[in-house]
Amino acid sequence: MPQEKSFHMTPDEFRRHGHAVVDWIADYQSRIESFPVLSQVKPGQLRASLPVNPPAEGEPFDTLLKDVDQLILPGVTHWQSPNWFAYFPCNASGPGILGDLLASGLGVQGMLWSTSPACTELETHVMDWLVGMLGLPQKFLSSSTGGGVIQDTASSAVLCALLAARERASGYTTNKKGGNGRLVAYASTQTHSSLEKAAMIAGIGTDNLRLIEVDEKFAMKPDALAHQVDADRKAGLIPCFVCATVGTTSSNAMDPVRAIGEVCQKNDLWLHVDAAMSGTAMVCLEFRHLQDGVDLADSYNFNPHKWMGANFDCSCFWVADRKALIQTLSILPEYLRNQATESGAVIDYRDWHIQLGRRFRSLKLWFVIRHYGIEGLQHNVREHVRLAQEFADWVKSDDRFELAAPVPLNLICFRHKGGDATNQSIMDRLNKSGDLCLTHTKLNGSLTLRLSVGQMNTKARHVERAWQLIREEANRLG
Amino acid sequence: MPQEKSFHMTPDEFRRHGHAVVDWIADYQSRIESFPVLSQVKPGQLRASLPVNPPAEGEPFDTLLKDVDQLILPGVTHWQSPNWFAYFPCNASGPGILGDLLASGLGVQGMLWSTSPACTELETHVMDWLVGMLGLPQKFLSSSTGGGVIQDTASSAVLCALLAARERASGYTTNKKGGNGRLVAYASTQTHSSLEKAAMIAGIGTDNLRLIEVDEKFAMKPDALAHQVDADRKAGLIPCFVCATVGTTSSNAMDPVRAIGEVCQKNDLWLHVDAAMSGTAMVCLEFRHLQDGVDLADSYNFNPHKWMGANFDCSCFWVADRKALIQTLSILPEYLRNQATESGAVIDYRDWHIQLGRRFRSLKLWFVIRHYGIEGLQHNVREHVRLAQEFADWVKSDDRFELAAPVPLNLICFRHKGGDATNQSIMDRLNKSGDLCLTHTKLNGSLTLRLSVGQMNTKARHVERAWQLIREEANRLG
Repeated sequence: MPQEKSFHMTPDEFRRHGHAVVDWIADYQSRIESFPVLSQVKPGQLRASLPVNPPAEGEPFDTLLKDVDQLILPGVTHWQSPNWFAYFPCNASGPGILGDLLASGLGVQGMLWSTSPACTELETHVMDWLVGMLGLPQKFLSSSTGGGVIQDTASSAVLCALLAARERASGYTTNKKGGNGRLVAYASTQTHSSLEKAAMIAGIGTDNLRLIEVDEKFAMKPDALAHQVDADRKAGLIPCFVCATVGTTSSNAMDPVRAIGEVCQKNDLWLHVDAAMSGTAMVCLEFRHLQDGVDLADSYNFNPHKWMGANFDCSCFWVADRKALIQTLSILPEYLRNQATESGAVIDYRDWHIQLGRRFRSLKLWFVIRHYGIEGLQHNVREHVRLAQEFADWVKSDDRFELAAPVPLNLICFRHKGGDATNQSIMDRLNKSGDLCLTHTKLNGSLTLRLSVGQMNTKARHVERAWQLIREEANRLG
Repeated sequence: MPQEKSFHMTPDEFRRHGHAVVDWIADYQSRIESFPVLSQVKPGQLRASLPVNPPAEGEPFDTLLKDVDQLILPGVTHWQSPNWFAYFPCNASGPGILGDLLASGLGVQGMLWSTSPACTELETHVMDWLVGMLGLPQKFLSSSTGGGVIQDTASSAVLCALLAARERASGYTTNKKGGNGRLVAYASTQTHSSLEKAAMIAGIGTDNLRLIEVDEKFAMKPDALAHQVDADRKAGLIPCFVCATVGTTSSNAMDPVRAIGEVCQKNDLWLHVDAAMSGTAMVCLEFRHLQDGVDLADSYNFNPHKWMGANFDCSCFWVADRKALIQTLSILPEYLRNQATESGAVIDYRDWHIQLGRRFRSLKLWFVIRHYGIEGLQHNVREHVRLAQEFADWVKSDDRFELAAPVPLNLICFRHKGGDATNQSIMDRLNKSGDLCLTHTKLNGSLTLRLSVGQMNTKARHVERAWQLIREEANRLG
């Protein structure tokens, strides 16, 4: 019999090319500080270097890797650089990358328990581990009334929380009848924009999203929340959902979860706690006071892909009442029916999120937790917090600068006293230099620089150099 | 200065462990036929083998990999086995896995053009390539009024299409005011369950989702659609969206896109074409007649992670009018503002889907297209279709069996004439044997076996053996 023609990579070819890619990444990690952190390309530059048409015939793998080096790299902004202080970090740790690679290699679909039992059970197991690791309430355990699921991002998680709240408050009728424009959701003015997007998607409407005022620390005022809920009830509307943030994106403000939770309990509102960035810090006992009251939450979310090193995407979401979530998102066509599901003895995660299909995401999270151990994860957090606190002290001791918000953990919001244009100029010049990358926000109407210490390879010398470069810019301004 | 303590994997450790993981995957690929295709574990079996508590201290990487072998593998259902005939395939090709590994290693966030220009531009470029490769209308090109984006799954894509349709039909007011229970969406009774879920999520409501009847080939009847749209309008409702499927999940039925599109044009309805599985076949000119009328579509979706080899998740979604999509999903908080965005010269993909954050998914798709070339992708499709057609012929030539639906491409729906219990028994016994995996559906009320030929390593000998095993089961039944 003649050999059938095949275009597939054989296992041996995969081995050879795979080693080359691993080497490429190891080299990239070694030389990452040699690149400008923020890509310096102009719009359209990469596209202009690519062929207009796809190749008619296959190309050798070496060509692909060479193009990554020559064409792609200049267009990369280096989120994995230790000089990355922008937005929040998005850490790709070694064990995370390799756990994810295994997930790609196994290539399983975890939509149902039966389509790969290990994919479901490892996820449940790791999510239960994290309940203890982060000091979350026991009701989030799979052995209790709740349970955890890995989602892609905090945006999807808050959407699922809002949907479950919507259904619970409407007696599970919105799924059937559609929205009625009367359900109301609440968050602070500082809440992440993903909630606004979720209110749009879920048919709640942004007119029915109340952004509650904040105090001088940019934390939600529980009294203002209670007042608004009362007013909405009196107006014939149906309050259903509150999002409290443990560490806002803008300034890392900490909403008072317990006081907000008490308002929720009194009014039968779903309380979602968004700790996307700061949740990782809860591996350290000394930071758990920042989420005091989390036992009142109906759902909770944090992103291990931010500060814990389980590379994107990996967003952990727990609910206290899994039935509410499943009743909200469940569909069961004939072609997905199977004995394990019918028995009720297993979890089918496709009913816990928007998508049907799902990757074996728990592998990378399991690898990260086991590689670092609790000790290593605590060390990472404490080091970053220590460096950020030092940076805050330097800001305070320089008369030209001021802190613009408290620094509870690892984000410093600060500004030059020279006004918006000065701060914009400092940021733009630093980012254009390629030496580091930082971003901005607005607080009390003023442009404010954000320096986020969280990239896992960021050490004292990087933070010290950042401060030195910022001061040099200030010196230049006179 | 003393060495700072670090728990991170060094580049050299990453290199060493990375080679080991690549070797593990190559070995897995080599021995994959030695495993039972469907995992044979019982519910709870994996969890019982895992430690109750997470490790206090880090563990050596070798231990992790050993546990994957000993604990995880028995709980894996082998989607990458050439004896995988269940559901639809979810192919992880060599170039796909390695492109995805690079994406993990670079670890960039593509939410904005500026957060890694290459991530956005390569995606736009590859999506434009695919417009030509699949014979899609020019209006989907980024240089025209439309554009493409890589989403995670077809579920998310159809949700985005439905949301854009919802907003267009409501004058972009639902985002603001919430749902009003009057918008109506349409699909056939055979449409994927993700649309039902999308109608729930989007606040349309399943009561407002009309499932139009199908003909004897399980394809939507355009006349019935037109009739229902008229009836709904007369009832004071607002028809807004139709989903036509090119290759349904249940039986690979092909909705008549052109006739449906004409109804949509006449009634100003958003036409979404779901070609999640079968879209890949459009790389071959001879199959494009199956999506005749696609020029009438407002949006289109296919999943390269199914039949093209760009491993999960990778779902390509195009719109004819990108402004409608962006206006539906756009949010712009201060901390995401930047010069490139303000200039309007760039695409910010965070406004093209549910999530904010996003992986560098185009790398794996680019690698797959370049590794195979158009020639290789065509070869893969043609081989699978040829094998499926052969299988269909064998079914027809065996008096005990019958085809339950047409076989336009690579899915065979068939059954033993002995009735539901017989077919259930054949399927259960084969799946329990571990020799192959296939699943079922119901067509015209009867349990029907589905044999999907699409795993990339499936060759003639695997399909021949599958038929032999099925016949042996039939022989056993007498």
